[in-house]
Amino acid sequence: MQVVLEEESLRDGLQAESRLFSLTEKMEIVRLLAEAGVRRLQLGSFVNPRSAPQVANTDVLAALVRRQYPDLLCTALVLNEKGLERAVRSGLNHLSMSISVSDTHSLHNSGRPAAEALEAMAELIARATSEGLQVRAGLQCAFGCVTDGAIDEAIVLAAAARLAAAGASEINLADTTGMAGPHQITSMATKVRKAHPEVEVSLHLHDTRGLGLVNIYAGYEAGVRIFDVAAGGLGGCPFIPGATGNVATEDAAHLFQGMGVATGIDLTLFCRVVDYYEALLERRLPGRMNRALQGATTGKDACAS
Amino acid sequence: MQVVLEEESLRDGLQAESRLFSLTEKMEIVRLLAEAGVRRLQLGSFVNPRSAPQVANTDVLAALVRRQYPDLLCTALVLNEKGLERAVRSGLNHLSMSISVSDTHSLHNSGRPAAEALEAMAELIARATSEGLQVRAGLQCAFGCVTDGAIDEAIVLAAAARLAAAGASEINLADTTGMAGPHQITSMATKVRKAHPEVEVSLHLHDTRGLGLVNIYAGYEAGVRIFDVAAGGLGGCPFIPGATGNVATEDAAHLFQGMGVATGIDLTLFCRVVDYYEALLERRLPGRMNRALQGATTGKDACAS
Repeated sequence: MQVVLEEESLRDGLQAESRLFSLTEKMEIVRLLAEAGVRRLQLGSFVNPRSAPQVANTDVLAALVRRQYPDLLCTALVLNEKGLERAVRSGLNHLSMSISVSDTHSLHNSGRPAAEALEAMAELIARATSEGLQVRAGLQCAFGCVTDGAIDEAIVLAAAARLAAAGASEINLADTTGMAGPHQITSMATKVRKAHPEVEVSLHLHDTRGLGLVNIYAGYEAGVRIFDVAAGGLGGCPFIPGATGNVATEDAAHLFQGMGVATGIDLTLFCRVVDYYEALLERRLPGRMNRALQGATTGKDACAS
Repeated sequence: MQVVLEEESLRDGLQAESRLFSLTEKMEIVRLLAEAGVRRLQLGSFVNPRSAPQVANTDVLAALVRRQYPDLLCTALVLNEKGLERAVRSGLNHLSMSISVSDTHSLHNSGRPAAEALEAMAELIARATSEGLQVRAGLQCAFGCVTDGAIDEAIVLAAAARLAAAGASEINLADTTGMAGPHQITSMATKVRKAHPEVEVSLHLHDTRGLGLVNIYAGYEAGVRIFDVAAGGLGGCPFIPGATGNVATEDAAHLFQGMGVATGIDLTLFCRVVDYYEALLERRLPGRMNRALQGATTGKDACAS
């Protein structure tokens, strides 16, 4: 049984960095990703360039990538009408939209309480699908919010129902704060999948508390087949000591490889992606497998246990 | 249902460090561990002080700890007759012994092929139990060896049977090379538990490929209730870039806490142990929860997803 690992480094990863990546650098990353077998990636966001300069070149990047890599499934994040218009012009067929189920987080991020943001996104989904686009709808803080605490599963289920009704082809449950544990993942994923067999359910997990891979494993055992990952574990807020990013693509690919589950990703080739990011960002990224595959941690089992 | 996290930092952790820890420093660590709720710990090894100077003070440490902390379950590693004699003199009631199921690794570590080392350990176990001691018998490379490759489950099962017959009260399956994945853990732990309901089965996992916590979770779901961990993720070989240590105690404790499983460990107090180690070793350790609990990674969920 196969799994899709959606690569988030160009959007979720880079928007957390202060260094701006040029179009040429991003195209090189796409080339390396494609060579490594990545089949699905989020190219950027159609948001105000002033608020997110890191993704300001998303429009032209989308156009170039679509022409050079017609077999790659590319998406981008859209948060409002303006973004949707840019997405339509870019020629992308898949979009990602996202709101938070936590009121505090929603107000902070979008200036609107959660219920209002949900309605607005439902309308945007309906508009996008009427234009023939496929939409993945994301629910941030689906497993808890640091300010609002635990999130009632019923809230997430109600939001998922609203988004499915609006025409989303995929519901993405995002553990924005890294607060999820394997039992919550199992419970939530099982319930959403059962309530909405007509949509795909995907997981977006952060490794803030070290549980990223545990949660991916639990999600897989609960039937989830699409997971958001980022090369090297990019994402989160890099000026905070300690990795708070996404699950590293190479670590997730390795987990599934060991389980005999196909992801399409060639680990050895994927390490070139991580090397490239580390070279440009001038720092080591937290993912484990890049170091392990370079032989840095193998062959040293001459310890007592 | 509760779990025992056996603290390995004083033995597995420190033997991988070049800095020598004084008796006073080790006693301070024991004090902090006890305050944080740790109930079981490996104090050191009874081996030749010249080959492992880091644990040369194990005899006197054991004597001091037994007197000051009578409720702590303390163990130490014993590899031969001489070590057993020192252990008996130290007054410890629990010992840990270990061999490798991989021939190459066994020859490298003990100068003997695996089968020979197994027999020698079986005899040592019989001697120790005749002296009234309880013995945990460990099988290194139980999930694979970097030189010999995958290890046949039948080999591990045969070794476990030999050790149980020799009188071991606990079989410890060690993923020395970090090559285990959750399915192998589930399979091996289930089989050993089923074959030997009269002994405890414990897991010693390394986080070399980032799967430490995934494997702990899989082990727990397979019925394992004792896990070896080390503060901050100490252990392994520190001069190799990238963490190759044990699963961090605080990360495992947090995983179980989220699952409603009692470990006895107070996470906030345990972070003082990690802080102390980091101060003396003058470097940051790879465990995630220490940083997360210091608020370094919380409250920063103002990102798009």
